[in-house]
Amino acid sequence: MPQPPRPTIDDVRAAAERIAPYVHRTPVHTCRSIDAMTRASLAFKCDNFQKCGAFKIRGATNAVFSLTDEEAARGVVTHSSGNHAAALSLAGSWRGIQVYVVMPSDAPAIKQAAVRSYGGQITFCEPTLAARQSTADQIIERTGATLIHPYDDHRIIAGQGTAALELLEDRPNLDVIVTPVGGGGLLSGTLIAAKALKPGIRVIAVEPARVDDAYRSMQSGRIEPNERIDTIADGLRTTLGEKTLPIIRELVDDIVLVDEHEIAAALRVVLERMKIVIEPSSAVPLAALLSGKLDLSGQRVGIHFGGGNVDLDKLPAILAT
Amino acid sequence: MPQPPRPTIDDVRAAAERIAPYVHRTPVHTCRSIDAMTRASLAFKCDNFQKCGAFKIRGATNAVFSLTDEEAARGVVTHSSGNHAAALSLAGSWRGIQVYVVMPSDAPAIKQAAVRSYGGQITFCEPTLAARQSTADQIIERTGATLIHPYDDHRIIAGQGTAALELLEDRPNLDVIVTPVGGGGLLSGTLIAAKALKPGIRVIAVEPARVDDAYRSMQSGRIEPNERIDTIADGLRTTLGEKTLPIIRELVDDIVLVDEHEIAAALRVVLERMKIVIEPSSAVPLAALLSGKLDLSGQRVGIHFGGGNVDLDKLPAILAT
Repeated sequence: MPQPPRPTIDDVRAAAERIAPYVHRTPVHTCRSIDAMTRASLAFKCDNFQKCGAFKIRGATNAVFSLTDEEAARGVVTHSSGNHAAALSLAGSWRGIQVYVVMPSDAPAIKQAAVRSYGGQITFCEPTLAARQSTADQIIERTGATLIHPYDDHRIIAGQGTAALELLEDRPNLDVIVTPVGGGGLLSGTLIAAKALKPGIRVIAVEPARVDDAYRSMQSGRIEPNERIDTIADGLRTTLGEKTLPIIRELVDDIVLVDEHEIAAALRVVLERMKIVIEPSSAVPLAALLSGKLDLSGQRVGIHFGGGNVDLDKLPAILAT
Repeated sequence: MPQPPRPTIDDVRAAAERIAPYVHRTPVHTCRSIDAMTRASLAFKCDNFQKCGAFKIRGATNAVFSLTDEEAARGVVTHSSGNHAAALSLAGSWRGIQVYVVMPSDAPAIKQAAVRSYGGQITFCEPTLAARQSTADQIIERTGATLIHPYDDHRIIAGQGTAALELLEDRPNLDVIVTPVGGGGLLSGTLIAAKALKPGIRVIAVEPARVDDAYRSMQSGRIEPNERIDTIADGLRTTLGEKTLPIIRELVDDIVLVDEHEIAAALRVVLERMKIVIEPSSAVPLAALLSGKLDLSGQRVGIHFGGGNVDLDKLPAILAT
């Protein structure tokens, strides 16, 4: 049977070249005290310092600059209330094209403001998945804009893979990379990049136990819904997509589940010891190590800090989880 | 009249060489959105990423490794409840010597734990300046330990000056450096280093208006007491010392005062925009720029982020100031 088409390491390399003029090459930080706690040698890829404060700008920029001039002239559209919407708006402004963002009417004001500050044009809809999709469809019909899905898109997956590419350029001797999984865009890109660059490297995903759709999808082979989405790791509430599921199912070495209080504890350790701000979703991989659910003693471990966009006014409640 | 002896740029260079094997060379961060807010080009020296989480390890390490073997064998003592006590304990552990720390009996548990984790030996005293001094004197009499004052010490001043030395190596074209002032160790070291390395550079100090002793000391020429110390910038509550006052009075270009809510607002901007954790004292220089009290439009500005040791459980109250 023919393999379904999917991004390759060449697509990731092309993405890296395409986005280089716009995004940061983010630094790798280390922390001796966290190494001691985990008895491992950890290298943290700090996309919390990335443009827009998150890795999402990688995929969004790759997607926007992959369009033909004719496509670009008609604009792009997405339905996302998170980091992807702001990232797509910024990437669109770099190319000078219109970005349409469909958001539920109850989206936080701070996220609306981020989109608008980059020039994105918001259309509100009812807070249901069906309403989001139909509103986006109407915009596409009216404008001819190209849909850029937050994660279930090969251009997005290749773009997110550039983080692992950079990490392995800076730290070629890693034994394992640990990455959070939500919709699977970052994880898919990481798998494609890491497994091609370094056969034998392991890639382990970590997921909040409350939204364990990826864990269940590995077993069932289909996209499993999440019955609850009340995790402090608010970037990981989505389920896998049609394009990310097969990549992850074939290539991921393991998926580990962590509890809410373990995520909060890991977030506190990062703030206190590393003196950097990450969002709760980015604390999920370290939570697996610190809780003992994932034992990587003696190994060289890459950990992806995906973003730093946390509402400071909610931080006390998050840390008290 | 002969000049009183004081550290020179040669002492700062010697300190840099002495401490290099032990401390981090901390990075310089930039932030385009804060540049836009201040209409200046800002370079932030990130000593929040320094060992012990603060620049204090620079002076402490220089002092400890400046001792003769005979002196070192008798240990060192300090009376400080802040970053200096932990830093001296760590520096002492590197040299393998005894560190005695005199702390008021009501010192926060977290600060006691930091000192102990590095092997420092705590002696508690009544929470008065007189009790601290007499308790330290007793330890010196009993052990022959060398007193290492938190800031009023030439070895400490030269050590703290290494931050400005590194900053000007990385950013030689700075027009001005803005630094917080508490006891004046960091400011004195910065003045000595910067004015020697780059004649014509300006060095501006910023102080919380509630503890404006340095501002008043510039006018009176003597050490002025602070009548209140209730500032969120808890690292800047101390007054200038006999050794720091004359250096600052001769060399500083200006001292600017900022209000508590301006410090809190600057701290929030750093957390939200730069995604790094700094302590409130380190937000004081930026507060002067963001509030408009210090206008450095169009200039290349170095700002010293001195430390990142903030109690996360107190952060909401601090940010709400």
